Amino acid sequence: MDEYITLDYGSGGRKTASLIQEILLPAFGNPALNALGDGAVIPGGEEMVFSTDSFVVSPLFFPGGDIGKLAVCGTLNDIAMAGGQPLYLSFSLIIEEGFPSDQLRRIVDSAAKEARKAGICIVTGDTKVVEKGCCDGLFINTAGIGLLKTASLGRQNLREGDKILVSGPVGDHGLTVLLARHPDLLSGDLRSDCANIAPLAQALFSLGSDLKLLRDPTRGGAATALSELAAGTPYSFELKENLLPISPSTRSACRLLGLDPLYSANEGKLLAVVSAEKAPEALALLQAFPEGKEAAIIGEVTALQPGRCLLRTFLGAIRVLQPLSGTQFPRIC
Amino acid sequence: MDEYITLDYGSGGRKTASLIQEILLPAFGNPALNALGDGAVIPGGEEMVFSTDSFVVSPLFFPGGDIGKLAVCGTLNDIAMAGGQPLYLSFSLIIEEGFPSDQLRRIVDSAAKEARKAGICIVTGDTKVVEKGCCDGLFINTAGIGLLKTASLGRQNLREGDKILVSGPVGDHGLTVLLARHPDLLSGDLRSDCANIAPLAQALFSLGSDLKLLRDPTRGGAATALSELAAGTPYSFELKENLLPISPSTRSACRLLGLDPLYSANEGKLLAVVSAEKAPEALALLQAFPEGKEAAIIGEVTALQPGRCLLRTFLGAIRVLQPLSGTQFPRIC
Repeated sequence: MDEYITLDYGSGGRKTASLIQEILLPAFGNPALNALGDGAVIPGGEEMVFSTDSFVVSPLFFPGGDIGKLAVCGTLNDIAMAGGQPLYLSFSLIIEEGFPSDQLRRIVDSAAKEARKAGICIVTGDTKVVEKGCCDGLFINTAGIGLLKTASLGRQNLREGDKILVSGPVGDHGLTVLLARHPDLLSGDLRSDCANIAPLAQALFSLGSDLKLLRDPTRGGAATALSELAAGTPYSFELKENLLPISPSTRSACRLLGLDPLYSANEGKLLAVVSAEKAPEALALLQAFPEGKEAAIIGEVTALQPGRCLLRTFLGAIRVLQPLSGTQFPRIC
Repeated sequence: MDEYITLDYGSGGRKTASLIQEILLPAFGNPALNALGDGAVIPGGEEMVFSTDSFVVSPLFFPGGDIGKLAVCGTLNDIAMAGGQPLYLSFSLIIEEGFPSDQLRRIVDSAAKEARKAGICIVTGDTKVVEKGCCDGLFINTAGIGLLKTASLGRQNLREGDKILVSGPVGDHGLTVLLARHPDLLSGDLRSDCANIAPLAQALFSLGSDLKLLRDPTRGGAATALSELAAGTPYSFELKENLLPISPSTRSACRLLGLDPLYSANEGKLLAVVSAEKAPEALALLQAFPEGKEAAIIGEVTALQPGRCLLRTFLGAIRVLQPLSGTQFPRIC
């Protein structure tokens, strides 16, 4: 740990991992937390999934969404990625003194609309107001509870030949928020993919133990998510560049800005590792949803370089995808 | 609603209530949320309690506690006040860039110590870092899940003659934080009561339906909590000034500063309404705990002025205790 917390510690990459490993786990460690999933599986009469996220996105409104929609979808998605069916959410506000009430209303309504669409209830919450200058407009925390629907997720089930799927084009959210914050950089028609993808995950649960891993590639993007999943396994996750869905707007914005869409955050995508046998069925399940119509099989589990995520480029070369180190885009969620 | 959010909307008093009534309930309303308890009771195989709070206290360290201890105790207490036995907590950080790592470690260790003492696990969490100047050091959100242990809490069971109990002296936390923030006002030996009082609540659950109401008087203090509980009932909650436990330091600080300890926040106290018959037993149950040794019966449920909380002063006069309007002390939790 450095002596002072820098923005890199919030990147979702290596520094965030070091904060978790060096400060949080030594203090709080227990089996449910140590698994470090998007949500915790907790025992009970029926096993439950419990997850939380704080949202500090800037700007609060961006093409394709706002902090309210993001706060609801983000926690629904995390519950689903941990194998759960979301049931209840909490919703907590930290508001800066002087914040316009009509913006607050729009954000709350947007959150409510997403919750309604998902068929879940926001059952508890909290409101704090801090002095002007003590927070940046509005922060939201949501926590959520779900019922565990599949207990088979885990790296112990990986096998060589398993397929890696993504539910659609990667990198849209991070780029959209970056350009919303710095409109001088570039103008374009980018749009965040912010969406509730819990229903897509529910569909994949029907694959039983053929569904091996599930992850939503938020901060740090698909490359960080997959390299974290590969770490410590006897396998490499080998992606094929020519199979990766990337929207034309995101691709050209990334080229112009020198950024990599594989490291740009998503807020409505899932990555899944599925047995080779069931991969076509998984693909069809995802493509049946509007949010999954551009789903693709993007690579497979191999033995090439154990513990690493690899990208086989258009030219056939192999590039190692390291987890994000430092902050590519701060405050994208 | 005013056009802009002022600090008063975070006071825990009337303005907070108007924000909840005018923006949050119309958007999110459902039976579990509409009950507006400290936590929500949610149905399931076994009924659960779900609660959350964001903590923005300033300063982060104060006599008797810190934001980490407060964040754990606050949510444990809210679960207990809703009739639950706390089981699991989440823990989310929003950190300002440049925050000292050693302070973060102290705060996290303090939270971990409270969780350990309470025998509960912190199973999930989140970490965000925002740019310097975009938050005031550190904010924490905790959410928690518990098992519902008593379903009898509710105003429908109130009867004339029921007794009102408090688990100890009121007003310490609010005054302590105020003086920690403005040491120039006054020097004294005040100390926050910040503590996990879930075990005291568990003890009272043994009273079954003779335990009618339970509330921890945090923002807005005992007067606001009791006037909210009395509102809409056919009863008044009549307190006797000479029975109210107030520590000598808090009493004299309040006198000097012209503040009322009944409106000052508590973070380790509970208010209970219990049948007259079981009130002595409830008092004994509370006094068996170190945190409850100064517990007292402070008043009773009468028919004098329905829907109101009243204070019978030393001189025998009746003073109506209105809910807090505006902010007495901002950012005390």
